[in-house]
Amino acid sequence: MAKVAKSAISPRRDEDYPEWYQQVVKAADLAENSPVRGCMVIKPWGYALWENIRDGLDVMFKATGHVNAYFPLFIPKSYIEKEAEHVEGFAKECAVVTHSRLEADPATGKLVPAGALDEPLIVRPTSETIIGATYSKWVQSYRDLPILVNQWANVVRWEMRTRLFLRTAEFLWQEGHTVHATAEEAQAETRRMLDVYADFAENFMAMPVIRGRKTDSERFPGAIETLCIEAMMQDRKALQAGTSHFLGQNFAKSCDIKFQDEAGQLQYAWTTSWGVSTRLIGGMIMTHSDDDGFVAPPRLAPQHIAILPIYRDPATRGDVLAYCESLKQEISDQTYCGRKILATIDDRDLRGGEKTWGWVKKGVPLRVEVGSRDIAENKVFVGRRDSGEKASVARAEFVATLPQKLQEIQDNLLARAKKFRAENMREINSKEEFYEFFTPKNREKPEIHGGFALCHWNGSAEVEAQIKKDLNVTIRCIPLDDNAFPPEPGTCPFSGEPSARRVIFAKSY
Amino acid sequence: MAKVAKSAISPRRDEDYPEWYQQVVKAADLAENSPVRGCMVIKPWGYALWENIRDGLDVMFKATGHVNAYFPLFIPKSYIEKEAEHVEGFAKECAVVTHSRLEADPATGKLVPAGALDEPLIVRPTSETIIGATYSKWVQSYRDLPILVNQWANVVRWEMRTRLFLRTAEFLWQEGHTVHATAEEAQAETRRMLDVYADFAENFMAMPVIRGRKTDSERFPGAIETLCIEAMMQDRKALQAGTSHFLGQNFAKSCDIKFQDEAGQLQYAWTTSWGVSTRLIGGMIMTHSDDDGFVAPPRLAPQHIAILPIYRDPATRGDVLAYCESLKQEISDQTYCGRKILATIDDRDLRGGEKTWGWVKKGVPLRVEVGSRDIAENKVFVGRRDSGEKASVARAEFVATLPQKLQEIQDNLLARAKKFRAENMREINSKEEFYEFFTPKNREKPEIHGGFALCHWNGSAEVEAQIKKDLNVTIRCIPLDDNAFPPEPGTCPFSGEPSARRVIFAKSY
Repeated sequence: MAKVAKSAISPRRDEDYPEWYQQVVKAADLAENSPVRGCMVIKPWGYALWENIRDGLDVMFKATGHVNAYFPLFIPKSYIEKEAEHVEGFAKECAVVTHSRLEADPATGKLVPAGALDEPLIVRPTSETIIGATYSKWVQSYRDLPILVNQWANVVRWEMRTRLFLRTAEFLWQEGHTVHATAEEAQAETRRMLDVYADFAENFMAMPVIRGRKTDSERFPGAIETLCIEAMMQDRKALQAGTSHFLGQNFAKSCDIKFQDEAGQLQYAWTTSWGVSTRLIGGMIMTHSDDDGFVAPPRLAPQHIAILPIYRDPATRGDVLAYCESLKQEISDQTYCGRKILATIDDRDLRGGEKTWGWVKKGVPLRVEVGSRDIAENKVFVGRRDSGEKASVARAEFVATLPQKLQEIQDNLLARAKKFRAENMREINSKEEFYEFFTPKNREKPEIHGGFALCHWNGSAEVEAQIKKDLNVTIRCIPLDDNAFPPEPGTCPFSGEPSARRVIFAKSY
Repeated sequence: MAKVAKSAISPRRDEDYPEWYQQVVKAADLAENSPVRGCMVIKPWGYALWENIRDGLDVMFKATGHVNAYFPLFIPKSYIEKEAEHVEGFAKECAVVTHSRLEADPATGKLVPAGALDEPLIVRPTSETIIGATYSKWVQSYRDLPILVNQWANVVRWEMRTRLFLRTAEFLWQEGHTVHATAEEAQAETRRMLDVYADFAENFMAMPVIRGRKTDSERFPGAIETLCIEAMMQDRKALQAGTSHFLGQNFAKSCDIKFQDEAGQLQYAWTTSWGVSTRLIGGMIMTHSDDDGFVAPPRLAPQHIAILPIYRDPATRGDVLAYCESLKQEISDQTYCGRKILATIDDRDLRGGEKTWGWVKKGVPLRVEVGSRDIAENKVFVGRRDSGEKASVARAEFVATLPQKLQEIQDNLLARAKKFRAENMREINSKEEFYEFFTPKNREKPEIHGGFALCHWNGSAEVEAQIKKDLNVTIRCIPLDDNAFPPEPGTCPFSGEPSARRVIFAKSY
């Protein structure tokens, strides 16, 4: 067995990928399980990632004409029942509020639910029905359209098996809900927001994604068409990172959203909805982290630089800290992608190694160590998280080149992720090869196997169901980008029937 | 009866204040009631106010060393039961989740709650207990202290009588929760955050506030001491606009937050909590609005300037819009208090008067009308919301003086509110005068009466209770600012007993 350098995270990815993920989340201080089953506590370092995601996306939403609003947390049961597919999709996993107070039980003295509600309320799993009911009042005439509104909110879906960020009972997200006069406009909006998500994933998260359309069996409950972005994690599974739904007139009909058109005719409107969630953080972790912990893409990093003062005796402490403070000030006068470059001085009373490793595990893009010798030479000792490079650099040069350095790291992360995806995506033309690709080679760990299979498909839900049953593999999407995935006809290896184009199969989160 | 100019809001403040408030909220498009009892829809113009409040406060929280995090929406029943006063305070009005799904009833086919939970969950009315349970794991040693965390979240309290922004079942807020090694540190934190709130209220909201301490009967359930800021609305009632609680060791004991001090002794920690909510928007509305609608303070205004193109024929439309666009561009190159100055061009197909009044009602600080003659003279016609002034101004001068003009409006709003408060606050020295001050002069509208009564009090809860019963008047606070409210001893007019200082009595929201 080859000798492997000891890593900060145990187990390593190749030893136990799911456990490695949990340990990275823990070591980077991103989140933890709460006492409430399935709900997480998002810790400050993790929440700062979410704030940066929110702020970055919010600018893009506003640039595409959207405004934010806020709708109720609760949905009356009768509202969620309105759209048949929708209720089918969400009734099985929702938090139901049935009472409006707690009262002491005379027998036991314990508090018990009291004040039963006339109609139970559902904690929103998504807000199409409650927002639709509101829109039915807002929309009267074609002059009221389009409505382009987004909401940042928490939602709840009672999941049986949860995993921090990836699948939790409560999660944070944004949900855009728009109303249009024509199907064409609504479809254009659906695609526009998918493109915003893809742009954000690649350029902020450094996470390459494939834009595509879901098959009927993977559609959002109540949608005519669901578009999605799919990313490849380091265990070669797919992560659905964002969805944009063309809802046709389904919710307009169930929620009664009608408008008078220019000819004076009453028509049902066309709606869309689109969302991304704290799941993105899980995707970012699984795209960039390594066996030493999290690696934050500079555009979303809570801090860009950790400054670590090094001194042995209290006498030099003052000088070292003063140097660090002035360095921090110089750094914060610089900007990177429109944000101030953020540096934090870590003067905690910890051993140097422990402190350095703490920042490695948290994924801060650059670490700067400052000791007496560095001060004497007017240098800083810089450690780069993505590449592991370490070098002593003249202070002035370090500060002046920071924006480029951060962009270099950002670019490197994206290039690395693209390379990984390219290495693990391939065209597959026979059923045998397909089944082999998705079958673990042995029953022991590591079980990382498979990847993205570009494969022809006859369009049949039965074929999909069989493959899912056999391998737990699904069609992640039918690609939309004809340049990257040319629509060449071929033969479905599962049925022998003709296929219009290859689709992407993978195991997934 | 004197002739009164027609106002945009009907009824006027002096005719029916509560109804005037509802009409302002409606006319300014800030919020509306939702189909869910007691829950509101915060519309885009109202939500933009909240975003600006959040962003303004968040900078101040971070400048005082706090970070944000996120904790679960749900609180297990057993957690809320842990602190006796706390459960007493919140059990009567909480949303109780009892089931985890909906199932079709075989008899009726209707969906009914199913999957009963082992332990009911409460939708957080406030998060001391769930955050306390988390902190008990985070805090081990004095080295882990202080913990300075804030959360932006939604909370639910089942209110019987609701009013948009002022009292709703669900509302948005922030709740800071901190842990300290000593009582002194926790008390200093409690006061520091009260000062942050007061600073924000006066300098962002232009809403003068009085800092004070609550009496025991008005304390937060579970607190040792509650500090508050109290503002006077235009109906002379008080609005509690923010609170900061010193929780002593109450929650540390009920949640088991213990640490090893420097001497190696295990000690209970000291905690604080502090919050402001969407209620602030209600306070802002009632402080500044007039009979023509809302008046937004420039520092929080969703838009600073509405540009209204005026043209009669399509031929001039292009020229006018081009002028407006270049004006908007010039404006947005200016900043006010660190924010880009925001202008919006309203080219909707509406009559000029309707459009102008729309922006008056929404409270945009400045309206700019641009017609062909203005373009010829390179001028703009400016309407100022707070003072009603209208003037034709040279374009270059208008743009160059915008930051000063906005600050002038901001200052004017604060000065006006301070003047109003001064006029309606007075020292009262006899019981008769006190009862007369707080008794409506007639049973008809207008019913605006009373104000802030600075009155001696013997410290007795019985006196408080009697006054509350008789007049629905409460002690809003015991002032903290000795300069504005010198602590001179006197005699309580209700009991004849000695009093250490005057306190502030008022009717309140």
